[in-house]
Amino acid sequence: MTILDELTAEVRAFAIARDWLQFHTPKNLAMAIAGEAGELAAEFQWLTAEESVTEALNTEQLKAIRHEMADVLIYLLRLSDVLHVDLVDAVREKLAINEVRFPSA
Amino acid sequence: MTILDELTAEVRAFAIARDWLQFHTPKNLAMAIAGEAGELAAEFQWLTAEESVTEALNTEQLKAIRHEMADVLIYLLRLSDVLHVDLVDAVREKLAINEVRFPSA
Amino acid sequence: MTILDELTAEVRAFAIARDWLQFHTPKNLAMAIAGEAGELAAEFQWLTAEESVTEALNTEQLKAIRHEMADVLIYLLRLSDVLHVDLVDAVREKLAINEVRFPSA
Amino acid sequence: MTILDELTAEVRAFAIARDWLQFHTPKNLAMAIAGEAGELAAEFQWLTAEESVTEALNTEQLKAIRHEMADVLIYLLRLSDVLHVDLVDAVREKLAINEVRFPSA
Repeated sequence: MTILDELTAEVRAFAIARDWLQFHTPKNLAMAIAGEAGELAAEFQWLTAEESVTEALNTEQLKAIRHEMADVLIYLLRLSDVLHVDLVDAVREKLAINEVRFPSA
Repeated sequence: MTILDELTAEVRAFAIARDWLQFHTPKNLAMAIAGEAGELAAEFQWLTAEESVTEALNTEQLKAIRHEMADVLIYLLRLSDVLHVDLVDAVREKLAINEVRFPSA
Repeated sequence: MTILDELTAEVRAFAIARDWLQFHTPKNLAMAIAGEAGELAAEFQWLTAEESVTEALNTEQLKAIRHEMADVLIYLLRLSDVLHVDLVDAVREKLAINEVRFPSA
Repeated sequence: MTILDELTAEVRAFAIARDWLQFHTPKNLAMAIAGEAGELAAEFQWLTAEESVTEALNTEQLKAIRHEMADVLIYLLRLSDVLHVDLVDAVREKLAINEVRFPSA
């Protein structure tokens, strides 16, 4: 059992304990990912590239960013769970496709 | 080394081989996550909840969805890498916060 | 009849001519706006602030950006239409709220 | 002067009064649009299509949705302003393209 499998099980258990599975259709989860990704983007919207690095962020900013990143992953894990998509396979498949599209020098 | 560490290293190596690290500021990566999350949402926008489940999706749709999910995770792994954010810790920290905000019955 | 009313009517007529009203639930339209906003963000994701200004963009980039901006507005007009939200009133109401939240010097 | 020109001028004046023009690069504004579109999507994420219509939304939900729609338009107007993009022309140009791509019966 990988750490992704473990997290997926933890996130699923959290939803089950609140009777939330009924809301977790693939469509709704894709919408939730877009919502959380929007909130993550909002944390960075007025920062310059230089202000966006770890060393330049204050503790409050970094904490908010960590939480938004977690929210994106939580809903991505839920979506992979309900769609039976293996995220590790999917990432490696996409990297292989990108290898062909963008050959390295 | 967890599977997330392995994927993070693979995605980083892919970027290094193309001299793309210069583009991967936290701000740009957050923007890329929003872009990919938007494309993922677009796959589902005209489907009903019933049409959005695995059994109802055709092979082409499921493949496109897998690839968009992979793209979201690829940029999330890059962002966690450049910000030195541990995604596993972040998810568990957020679940603990949500436990308090949304107590289960 | 304002230009926004005119555009709203044109966009509605376009949807009716294709029998698309059935897909234009508020939920689906909100999802479509997120999708188009993601594509708009993607046009800018690897550009620096300096590279993102009109003078620095090439014709192809500017055309793509114009089209993504149009897509965001098209779905926003559809959403305002189906929800009976007056966008002009909504913008002015929000500016009034922001006046209080962010007093000018 | 159309209502869109008027709103554009009002939104610009609001930014000038707060010395915010410095933050309003096209890149940052595109990111802000994605952020607000994400928040708009979030208002609808757990609703069914039936629950998302005006008659089914309560006053609080409708107000929140109106404000998020306003925020998307506010930043879209700012982006059109800084990029010198005529939104009316852009929408009509895009509808003309879509006429060819999706011929009506």
